Amino acid sequence: MTVALLTDKYELTMLAAALRDGTAHRRTTFEVFARRLPEGRRYGVVAGTGRFVEALAEFTFAPEILAGLADFLDSRTLDFLAGYRFGGDVDGYAEGELYFPGSPVLSVHGTFAECVVLETLVLSILNHDTAIASAAARMVSVANGRPMIEMGSRRTHEMAAVAAARAAYLAGFAGSSNLAAQQRYGVPALGTAAHAFTLLHTTEAGPDERAAFRGQVEALGVDTTLLVDTYDITAGVANAIAVAGPQLGAVRIDSGDLGVLARQVRRQLDDLGATGTQIVVSGDLDEFAIAALRAEPVDSYGVGTSVVTGSGAPTAGMVYKLVEVDGMPVAKRSSHKESLGGRKQSLRLAKPSGTIVEEVVHPYGEAPPEPSGFTARPLTVPLVTAGVPVQGAHPAVDLAAARERVTVGLHSLPWDGLKLSRGEPAIPTRLVPPKA
Amino acid sequence: MTVALLTDKYELTMLAAALRDGTAHRRTTFEVFARRLPEGRRYGVVAGTGRFVEALAEFTFAPEILAGLADFLDSRTLDFLAGYRFGGDVDGYAEGELYFPGSPVLSVHGTFAECVVLETLVLSILNHDTAIASAAARMVSVANGRPMIEMGSRRTHEMAAVAAARAAYLAGFAGSSNLAAQQRYGVPALGTAAHAFTLLHTTEAGPDERAAFRGQVEALGVDTTLLVDTYDITAGVANAIAVAGPQLGAVRIDSGDLGVLARQVRRQLDDLGATGTQIVVSGDLDEFAIAALRAEPVDSYGVGTSVVTGSGAPTAGMVYKLVEVDGMPVAKRSSHKESLGGRKQSLRLAKPSGTIVEEVVHPYGEAPPEPSGFTARPLTVPLVTAGVPVQGAHPAVDLAAARERVTVGLHSLPWDGLKLSRGEPAIPTRLVPPKA
Repeated sequence: MTVALLTDKYELTMLAAALRDGTAHRRTTFEVFARRLPEGRRYGVVAGTGRFVEALAEFTFAPEILAGLADFLDSRTLDFLAGYRFGGDVDGYAEGELYFPGSPVLSVHGTFAECVVLETLVLSILNHDTAIASAAARMVSVANGRPMIEMGSRRTHEMAAVAAARAAYLAGFAGSSNLAAQQRYGVPALGTAAHAFTLLHTTEAGPDERAAFRGQVEALGVDTTLLVDTYDITAGVANAIAVAGPQLGAVRIDSGDLGVLARQVRRQLDDLGATGTQIVVSGDLDEFAIAALRAEPVDSYGVGTSVVTGSGAPTAGMVYKLVEVDGMPVAKRSSHKESLGGRKQSLRLAKPSGTIVEEVVHPYGEAPPEPSGFTARPLTVPLVTAGVPVQGAHPAVDLAAARERVTVGLHSLPWDGLKLSRGEPAIPTRLVPPKA
Repeated sequence: MTVALLTDKYELTMLAAALRDGTAHRRTTFEVFARRLPEGRRYGVVAGTGRFVEALAEFTFAPEILAGLADFLDSRTLDFLAGYRFGGDVDGYAEGELYFPGSPVLSVHGTFAECVVLETLVLSILNHDTAIASAAARMVSVANGRPMIEMGSRRTHEMAAVAAARAAYLAGFAGSSNLAAQQRYGVPALGTAAHAFTLLHTTEAGPDERAAFRGQVEALGVDTTLLVDTYDITAGVANAIAVAGPQLGAVRIDSGDLGVLARQVRRQLDDLGATGTQIVVSGDLDEFAIAALRAEPVDSYGVGTSVVTGSGAPTAGMVYKLVEVDGMPVAKRSSHKESLGGRKQSLRLAKPSGTIVEEVVHPYGEAPPEPSGFTARPLTVPLVTAGVPVQGAHPAVDLAAARERVTVGLHSLPWDGLKLSRGEPAIPTRLVPPKA
């Protein structure tokens, strides 16, 4: 599937009309931002920027693709697309930065023709990846240092799963079940066995859990994780230690009341001398269930559906709006969708303690005076210059830096910004209008 | 991205263990089913089957892929994967069929080794596409014949967007904004212009909506759809007709109180003699908003976020469970996840009027006696035989047939099965246990 077709038809019909009436070559700025956070969320985590920069380089129209567009595009437009290669600039928030309503997360600068065709691609990537990273960061925050494994590939589109694994890792997950995410982005791949493996070892005499555990330990070593809840959990734990010995790496519990079971299994493991054997829990976990397990003897969490579907907010709701034409700010005026025109930058104010207090979005090149007693950190960084990615803006390379930004960002939030309950954005956004 | 890596690591570690302990070549059946429908839903619509069958043919491991797996797999497993090509059977529900809790939507038959590695791929595709088609069908049902356009590509992962466009079309949408879905699956691509095009025509003298409309009409003809809510809607409609004349194809309203505005715009268009000019509405529509607009003079709907995110249910929650090993039924027994083992088929009972009354899931080859007064329609059809797709099981070819199945299926529901409000599944599922 060619990247350039991951586009809405109206982008190309607008291009055709603009090429015809002479407006296609006006200098424009399109801005990606979210009018609001998903309901009740207090912060979001930017993700997808690296994937967008990578995809941008592949956004070209091969002849066979153009042939499929010839039924609704004129030859002028087809000729333009045949030579298309983005030659403008992109700036915005580095991956892993927090964002708030109105944060200019990404801006694309170039001719109308070269910018308008990117709308769907940039929004698809940022809306998806940001939704996942934002949900994942809440889970990381409440897990309080216990590792989490993303294992929700099966609950989302097969390619979305790869990006979701990357976004969850970016937000602080320890790894993912997804093999493609490992090969493509270096996300650590984790996982050992499902119930099917235990069930496979059924004979005419009935289930044989020990045979399954033996098979797994022989193949994967005693450091593996044995899934103990296929039949009876107490018997499962006993079988696991009988087969692997007290050096067993971990047991996984995937069903039932996980808190109660974790305590019971911990006691049983300790009684069996398997004091170093860890307990992994999984099964419909979300940030609230993870928080509820904080007092329990759980060593790590496997999280599936909730993280890959954004835990109730499967899209970040970002938009791609034309904000400037030939240096003039422009904005839609009808209804309740007003926004401030003009190319923007932003900075974030913090107390000397590091706790953030305000997001300041200001016209490009016109930083407001720094209020005394606060530090101001600029958030807008160059990502693509004249069509060429700025070094380090690649999706795999940057993951470590992005993970660090999430850690720092979560630390910088006022304490109530980390609460799971619904609330307002953790800090206000101040939009500084252009000088008249 | 190779299809074979869209896989969870544990499938390959289980494979390694099963190859080592001799269980890999047991004959197995894995079943895809949903334990329940998304909360409050009364039916679901199966989608993705065609995409899965297509992907299955590409599920092979090239040498460079195997090189990336060599850090955790032994040479026996790597050799097996090098020669992997699915050679088993697949049967299940045709795309577009309704399904209910426990419906055996898809079953995969073959050796453990060849079936276990498909878990993530089959679930990713079915869980995603089914979630979208199920949400879309509710919208189609309440739209009551008015065409709907899927335009949510920007709100979901860029590749998920293509599959979402296909799934929405399968469920009865008229088309999609997504160009890739048109080239790949023949989904009609629709769309004309965004607010950016109107804003682009700003000059130093200010906005010039008429110039934008003129540019669009010159490029796309008077049959185009003009977006009239960038500035003032009443002025927008006046400008649209002034530029295009009363033969204008349609106007689109994307913000505000759509019902009130539709009435007002209809009156204005009629007064201007544009009685044939249609009204398209868009902007945060879901099935409830569509239902609320049934009495208004709306000609078609553009639906974005809600359809591509499954309108509150972004995944269908289907699972892939080992149900039979060498002819023996097997099932997990712990906690509340009990399910019935054994290879299954199903049929749906209907009254002579065509209204369905029950889903009957029975052991393979053992159809229960047909209750008098009802007709029984078998639902399980062959999809892949000895690794070869059954004719017609391809994702593009079958879309027309799948759309027809959705139409027939919605017609067959008891009247309260079509209600939007939360409720129980429209018909019960009866699980017939294997003969002892």
